Amino acid sequence: MGWLPDETGLGKVPANYTPLTPLSFLKRAVEVYPDHLAVAYGSHRVDYRAYAARVSRLASALAGRGIQPGDVVATLLPNIPAHAEAHFGVPAAGAVLNAINTRLDAGTVAYIFAHGGAKLALVDSEVIEVAEAALVEMEGPGPVLIEVVDAEAGCIASGRHTTYDALLAEGAPDAPWIMPEDEWESIALNYTSGTTGRPKGVVYHHRGAYLNAMGQVLSWRMVLNPVYLTIVPLFHCNGWCHTWMMPVVGGTLVCCREIRAKPIFDAIAEEGVTHFGGAPIVLNTLINAPEAERRAFPQVVEVFTAGAPPAPSTLAKIEPMGFNVTHVYGLTETYGPGTECTWQAKWDGTAGAARADLKARQGVAMPFLEHVTVMDDRMVEVPHDGETKGEIMFRGNGVMKGYYKNPEATEESFAGGYFHSGDIAILEEDGYIRIADRAKDIIISGGENISSVEVEGVLMGHDAVSLCAVVAKPDETWGEVPCAFVELKTGAEAEEAELIAFVRGQLAGFKTPKKVVFGELPKTSTGKIQKFQLRAQAKEM
Amino acid sequence: MGWLPDETGLGKVPANYTPLTPLSFLKRAVEVYPDHLAVAYGSHRVDYRAYAARVSRLASALAGRGIQPGDVVATLLPNIPAHAEAHFGVPAAGAVLNAINTRLDAGTVAYIFAHGGAKLALVDSEVIEVAEAALVEMEGPGPVLIEVVDAEAGCIASGRHTTYDALLAEGAPDAPWIMPEDEWESIALNYTSGTTGRPKGVVYHHRGAYLNAMGQVLSWRMVLNPVYLTIVPLFHCNGWCHTWMMPVVGGTLVCCREIRAKPIFDAIAEEGVTHFGGAPIVLNTLINAPEAERRAFPQVVEVFTAGAPPAPSTLAKIEPMGFNVTHVYGLTETYGPGTECTWQAKWDGTAGAARADLKARQGVAMPFLEHVTVMDDRMVEVPHDGETKGEIMFRGNGVMKGYYKNPEATEESFAGGYFHSGDIAILEEDGYIRIADRAKDIIISGGENISSVEVEGVLMGHDAVSLCAVVAKPDETWGEVPCAFVELKTGAEAEEAELIAFVRGQLAGFKTPKKVVFGELPKTSTGKIQKFQLRAQAKEM
Repeated sequence: MGWLPDETGLGKVPANYTPLTPLSFLKRAVEVYPDHLAVAYGSHRVDYRAYAARVSRLASALAGRGIQPGDVVATLLPNIPAHAEAHFGVPAAGAVLNAINTRLDAGTVAYIFAHGGAKLALVDSEVIEVAEAALVEMEGPGPVLIEVVDAEAGCIASGRHTTYDALLAEGAPDAPWIMPEDEWESIALNYTSGTTGRPKGVVYHHRGAYLNAMGQVLSWRMVLNPVYLTIVPLFHCNGWCHTWMMPVVGGTLVCCREIRAKPIFDAIAEEGVTHFGGAPIVLNTLINAPEAERRAFPQVVEVFTAGAPPAPSTLAKIEPMGFNVTHVYGLTETYGPGTECTWQAKWDGTAGAARADLKARQGVAMPFLEHVTVMDDRMVEVPHDGETKGEIMFRGNGVMKGYYKNPEATEESFAGGYFHSGDIAILEEDGYIRIADRAKDIIISGGENISSVEVEGVLMGHDAVSLCAVVAKPDETWGEVPCAFVELKTGAEAEEAELIAFVRGQLAGFKTPKKVVFGELPKTSTGKIQKFQLRAQAKEM
Repeated sequence: MGWLPDETGLGKVPANYTPLTPLSFLKRAVEVYPDHLAVAYGSHRVDYRAYAARVSRLASALAGRGIQPGDVVATLLPNIPAHAEAHFGVPAAGAVLNAINTRLDAGTVAYIFAHGGAKLALVDSEVIEVAEAALVEMEGPGPVLIEVVDAEAGCIASGRHTTYDALLAEGAPDAPWIMPEDEWESIALNYTSGTTGRPKGVVYHHRGAYLNAMGQVLSWRMVLNPVYLTIVPLFHCNGWCHTWMMPVVGGTLVCCREIRAKPIFDAIAEEGVTHFGGAPIVLNTLINAPEAERRAFPQVVEVFTAGAPPAPSTLAKIEPMGFNVTHVYGLTETYGPGTECTWQAKWDGTAGAARADLKARQGVAMPFLEHVTVMDDRMVEVPHDGETKGEIMFRGNGVMKGYYKNPEATEESFAGGYFHSGDIAILEEDGYIRIADRAKDIIISGGENISSVEVEGVLMGHDAVSLCAVVAKPDETWGEVPCAFVELKTGAEAEEAELIAFVRGQLAGFKTPKKVVFGELPKTSTGKIQKFQLRAQAKEM
């Protein structure tokens, strides 16, 4: 330990110690870039001074509404300015941000409201009815709903709730922020589908949010004043921490409500977008855009892509269009991206399939992680042979605090001193990770995680279903879609369309099986369903 | 405070918490950039794998020599590979690096050896005699000397000490490193001249070294794989933390023993240098280089300059030569640069004197500092009026732990929750800091701090001197040089050359007055010497 023989007077004092928090980035941006464009969304264009003032209004209005430090404030919002403001305003009230997937069904939202204990929720007009339905389903008290009315998108207030604008008017533009006293304090609570049907609440701390944001600047070749387009939903690992990152580099956050080719090309051409993140499906959307929606632009746009490896054909087509794609990989538990397929100078000469093959790998640890590798069951790193499979393991400051109200799951996931990703991979000779298979039964559709167990649970509720298994079926548009294999009860009958409609009545559309196959399921001698056989079958369809 | 109502199982464990340390950067670089050129110095060219192996050798050899965690290991070295290795190898042994200015006299070195308590010192052949003389002057035990023989520079071993190469041979290339268990552990001890004659020992921690390095990457528009030239001495705030920074960006450290135009131009042209830091005098050296020493190069070299504001004429001449200069400002107490004159997009159109005037300012807080501003005596920020003077104050993770074995000075410097720089400045309308005057009697000559009090102390030891004051005299080459004003004792006589020689016998050459003026000193009614009058007089010479 590096303690000097005499450490008298060398302790932490206000002059030399500040808990790490992304709130510091925004405070500094007000000093350094006060009149630089901070957030752009149609006619909404605010500089850093105004952005911070809106954050102060939100924080103080929340306090005025009784939100105390440690309380949870939820959002059900697309990527609009209010959502970015919540990323700072909620922590600035000392509260914890619970950004909820806007595509979830009312039942799951009710579960998250109850489990997370949100006291207040900011809800977009388009999903206000889902939130209202969730409140009806809840047994205990639910959050107060504040309706965010997106006039840019033509939304009209329901008239049933206080609006976000009215809430901001209750606050003060110069109200002080509640800064963390300990950087381990919680900043966000993000629900993710795991191996069980119910989502788990992943807790982030201020320290991790700060370090992830700083570290990704390095990984992403980002210099001062980038222009960032919000494609990754802010309810996904807080948009990979990118909203928190922008102020430290004096960047501009360009909001994007709808992920379609036209608004993306428009933003790149008109706002000068330099960076965005998104699943490979977003790249395919741009590649397949009709000529009329395309725009010319002079810059090279740096793209982080995750959710699935970018396909060689995607890379081959998107890069000449003015995009440089870096494959990143991570989980909600790692604040989003935790590895990056860092480009090596020695690869500069490669092209075509060889280049795509290099770029499709999951890569190496980002700077804020201490160690990411692939290990066998005894927690020993597998050889760098491109063959031996193991589980991807994470260790470092970019790993979550744990699962909320679930110390058993937390302990299990951190066994042996590493976070167990559940993803099966090999190590290439150069140490780069390449995913071979997913150990957990997660289907990733359009960048969204779907728990097959959850879908199976719903299907099993149908009177005719005896047994079922849901696996991923490769899909050109979505990457993967759920595919159900069903054994019917003896004598019972059901049609594919009927089962799909049955699930659709209870789950979000993206979770609904796109294909149902009837027949006996392959099982092991102990009766365990052999999903790998079903995956192979789904792949061949 | 953002603690959730139930934080059970959400604490720090090895999977999610790693103490911040620059050692992590090098560990990661071995994984990510194993065969990338890490250190270049003439024929010495090692990649990250070999660099880390040499660091492991050093750390384990130090341990073999009895160096324990918390022990101090000193260096008296120019910017050669051994010095870079010491920046990682000494902390990797759990020890604290005490990099000592190679231009100091034996008496001051003896003081630092004794005060810092170094157990071992790595010493360059060119200054081995100074270290030996320091040992002779010491009353207690001094450090074991290890001689670093720089064959590239034609140095020859004295034969009186173990050599660095022999020391490395004692270590193991795969020895594990001692990582900090607490990021507040000390990593470096840097002596700086303050208002008193004796230097104070500024202590850095692993956390600060990590955050400063990360933050400067952002400030410096640094993307992956930069090529950094070591002009700032590594004994100056550990070379502004830049040696620690390189591995996180997979950079190459190009060592430079002699700060002359030819080797600098050669490194830029041959190694493709992209970044260096240095005092404005270095820029003048390049500007005034003879044609034969200049080299053409295609890249724009990003330069951090500090020690004095870059002069308009310097900026006007250096920028068209292929350099982009950013003025930074800081002190040993802030790990080197703590503010940067961040360029604003809105200034893009400015040129000439207006551009130079903007660029000469001390600027705004770097990302790792929470707040840097100018305050009056009551610790209230001065108005942004470009007129009202106050003291520059620093607060945040880029401020030292404190002064070693000097809790009184530490407490005083941190009064009111900010580090008091001692530098007097104004705040411009846009919040940028501009230094107006230096409150402490520090003369900055060629980037070196000289305590006028120390020089005065020596002069006062001369039999003929009654009273004296040493102030900065502006100098084209060195920025400032010491100028002495002397009142002789009644009837006593002394010549200028005699007094200069007298000081030279006791202090390093750069501390010696270049001019001595005899006469009565201006004093206040209470007898305090009015140095501002002498400064004005020196300025007019």
